[in-house]
Amino acid sequence: MDIINGLPLINKGECDDERSTTCGFRAQLPGIVDDLVGSCFSSDCFEHINADPLPSREKAIDLVERCQDILFPGYFRHHDIDKINLEYRMGLEVSALYDRLAVEITYAIRHECIRHNQTCQHCDQQGKQKAFAFIQSLGNIRKTLATDVKAAYEGDPAVSSYDEIIFCYPGIMAIMSYRIAHRLYELEVPILPRIMTEYAHSVTGIDIHPGAEIGNSFFIDHGTGVVIGQTCHIGNQVKIYQGVTLGALSFKRDDSGNLDRKSKRHPTLEDNVTVYAGTTILGGDTVIGAHSVVGGNVWLTKSVPAGSKVLLNPPELIIK
Amino acid sequence: MDIINGLPLINKGECDDERSTTCGFRAQLPGIVDDLVGSCFSSDCFEHINADPLPSREKAIDLVERCQDILFPGYFRHHDIDKINLEYRMGLEVSALYDRLAVEITYAIRHECIRHNQTCQHCDQQGKQKAFAFIQSLGNIRKTLATDVKAAYEGDPAVSSYDEIIFCYPGIMAIMSYRIAHRLYELEVPILPRIMTEYAHSVTGIDIHPGAEIGNSFFIDHGTGVVIGQTCHIGNQVKIYQGVTLGALSFKRDDSGNLDRKSKRHPTLEDNVTVYAGTTILGGDTVIGAHSVVGGNVWLTKSVPAGSKVLLNPPELIIK
Amino acid sequence: MDIINGLPLINKGECDDERSTTCGFRAQLPGIVDDLVGSCFSSDCFEHINADPLPSREKAIDLVERCQDILFPGYFRHHDIDKINLEYRMGLEVSALYDRLAVEITYAIRHECIRHNQTCQHCDQQGKQKAFAFIQSLGNIRKTLATDVKAAYEGDPAVSSYDEIIFCYPGIMAIMSYRIAHRLYELEVPILPRIMTEYAHSVTGIDIHPGAEIGNSFFIDHGTGVVIGQTCHIGNQVKIYQGVTLGALSFKRDDSGNLDRKSKRHPTLEDNVTVYAGTTILGGDTVIGAHSVVGGNVWLTKSVPAGSKVLLNPPELIIK
Repeated sequence: MDIINGLPLINKGECDDERSTTCGFRAQLPGIVDDLVGSCFSSDCFEHINADPLPSREKAIDLVERCQDILFPGYFRHHDIDKINLEYRMGLEVSALYDRLAVEITYAIRHECIRHNQTCQHCDQQGKQKAFAFIQSLGNIRKTLATDVKAAYEGDPAVSSYDEIIFCYPGIMAIMSYRIAHRLYELEVPILPRIMTEYAHSVTGIDIHPGAEIGNSFFIDHGTGVVIGQTCHIGNQVKIYQGVTLGALSFKRDDSGNLDRKSKRHPTLEDNVTVYAGTTILGGDTVIGAHSVVGGNVWLTKSVPAGSKVLLNPPELIIK
Repeated sequence: MDIINGLPLINKGECDDERSTTCGFRAQLPGIVDDLVGSCFSSDCFEHINADPLPSREKAIDLVERCQDILFPGYFRHHDIDKINLEYRMGLEVSALYDRLAVEITYAIRHECIRHNQTCQHCDQQGKQKAFAFIQSLGNIRKTLATDVKAAYEGDPAVSSYDEIIFCYPGIMAIMSYRIAHRLYELEVPILPRIMTEYAHSVTGIDIHPGAEIGNSFFIDHGTGVVIGQTCHIGNQVKIYQGVTLGALSFKRDDSGNLDRKSKRHPTLEDNVTVYAGTTILGGDTVIGAHSVVGGNVWLTKSVPAGSKVLLNPPELIIK
Repeated sequence: MDIINGLPLINKGECDDERSTTCGFRAQLPGIVDDLVGSCFSSDCFEHINADPLPSREKAIDLVERCQDILFPGYFRHHDIDKINLEYRMGLEVSALYDRLAVEITYAIRHECIRHNQTCQHCDQQGKQKAFAFIQSLGNIRKTLATDVKAAYEGDPAVSSYDEIIFCYPGIMAIMSYRIAHRLYELEVPILPRIMTEYAHSVTGIDIHPGAEIGNSFFIDHGTGVVIGQTCHIGNQVKIYQGVTLGALSFKRDDSGNLDRKSKRHPTLEDNVTVYAGTTILGGDTVIGAHSVVGGNVWLTKSVPAGSKVLLNPPELIIK
């Protein structure tokens, strides 16, 4: 057998039919498959091998896009909406969203039950309840998103129209996905909210945990690299720029040494706070008082009172 | 009626057909739809409900990909190009691009007219004019992009071939989208250019406003988190790394308190400037003189003369 | 001829058929096409005009997704896997992956041969060898990825289940793509590995060069803006956060002034090192000793011994 680059070369004389079941590389595949199957149930492999359906990224993205069509009517997938057909279109979209959401929430709940070896009680009914409760919130989510769009227009001299913001601002996409996911998180829907915000993270570079609490008129400009942790509290009229981290300072562990997954680990930003690019604010006890401005590249791990201006005393530059 | 998790449970005895039009959650959807429709025309909702077609993200992406096929022939969607069919293929692609671009530009112009309650004068003709003017620029855009590819090869030891740059460098994708969008911006095409650069931002993490002026042989390495503002001027042979912001220092307002959306707010980088990762340069009056090097993590809000080296005097580290 | 906005307006009287082949903008397209075709073979244009097939981004993404289905069975595209059909499904997937990988690797190798005007010796056989050698590694890659998933669960209080990590953590997606690409890189497959990791970069904002060496139990949290250079060495149990750069300090050139593309330019992180958000570590000789912790926003260009804690002495803040 010849060798090229240290790898065995099939001798064409020996085995000139690659599709042969008795020689060549393909003939060796079954052994590898056996090993891969055999190790599926060891601790070296995470598998999801059983017949229960589970929520999927594709379905979660579809749900976000269906919400988007209802929250910003006429902007995205259905351009042919006018005042004549609006009600019919909206009726179809809302009922389709309800149906699909009920199914996906049910999958998510049942999936958790099975993973934790619990009996699935009323999973199906809970799916419908939570889907309906979400649908009831769409009006309020739309109202809040309108304040976010206006805040973007107020906050950015480079924008020329509201439409530009709705069509192409990553901040609006990330905030919309967060507001949808956050409502599902409040309704204690498992896994689906995080899939939604991580989809937005992938598209925008803005990582907002669905557990964060965020007020109205929220504006994120540019946004790449923004991280907003699970237990953040953010007031109304807050504005943040690219590369801002609102994160945890350190992780507590319980008496058994397990991570404490429940305490407040991330900061609070009160109303009308502005945080410029690249700044990091850490810690569950850190409170940035109302109307404060935190400059760029600041590293802040303690509270500041309302009306503060926090600026970096810029490190000395060496200019040659 | 039973309650689970604080949400009402439909009593199956009362209403065992979820598709019933008189009971259950689905039966309550029409009321919610009415509210969502009714609020569409309030200030709490941004809608785009009328019959005029408008540019879409999907179409904008398609246009960028069609340009890409012409700018880098044979690399992307049509692999079967050879010297025999090149002219036919190029002819088909250029005429298809012209037709589609004319339509989308017309939509964008008409959309602006309607939004501003203006009569649409020559919108259709303007769409064709601007599309044609863009097509006339393709040769120059290709020439400039070739200098960008060469600059990437010169600037990055990790690359092994020009093809690798064209196939997979996010910087090239972002710069190409910018160069296409910038030409449309010069031609005063509304909204479409920004949709294009925000698409590239989404794919690459590199946010270049179509209004920026950028010379040839431009190289962005890695690129995630780069922000280049609307009124930046960037010379030839400039090289920047991930996380560099070329931004505004503060926003001016006019006498009525409205944001000044026209003055130069972003810096100027003269020829042969290099800016390393994580550096922020701010302000419309800030000029980085030719052949200067600005190190990583620098925060710079004032001009430096040609040939400067600007380094951070690194903040003291505490090493335990 | 009228003029609008400085652009010529076709006089409808002169030429009222836009599809006319003798007048109007469309009639002028052939001249532009001729110029674009003519310049294809100048140094102002990068083209790939010949009949040899080449690897494509779409195919590379498909390969990553096929690997994903084998590495995490049941999670992604095929939800209907159970213990009955597992072996059949896995057999189909492994043999399909082998076949497609062999084709794409062959294209990549042949593409390099043609670019360098070499005769293509055994390209086809090498494609099969390397594909087979890759398939043989799938079991080990799966084992290592399981350690990465466990490290994420251990490292992040915001996560509630392993499934959440596998479904939606960008870090796992980026690390999986890297581990696949790195094995192909070890097998000296050209171009394909980089297309794979740049795809993951686009989706996650995490840029890992396929040449880096990375141990098991690797955790990247949030991840946007992370850059890991080609010649990095990273030990086991290492944890890094968003915005961390492990980069080159400067580029060496050989005697002819060409970039040295081979020497170690990027740092070494020994076992159990943690690096917090926004930190930059540069240089091929820089070694971060085992069990060290490097705080956020640090700029580090020299080695530290095992067990170090490196913290920024935070620059003075001006709080008004």
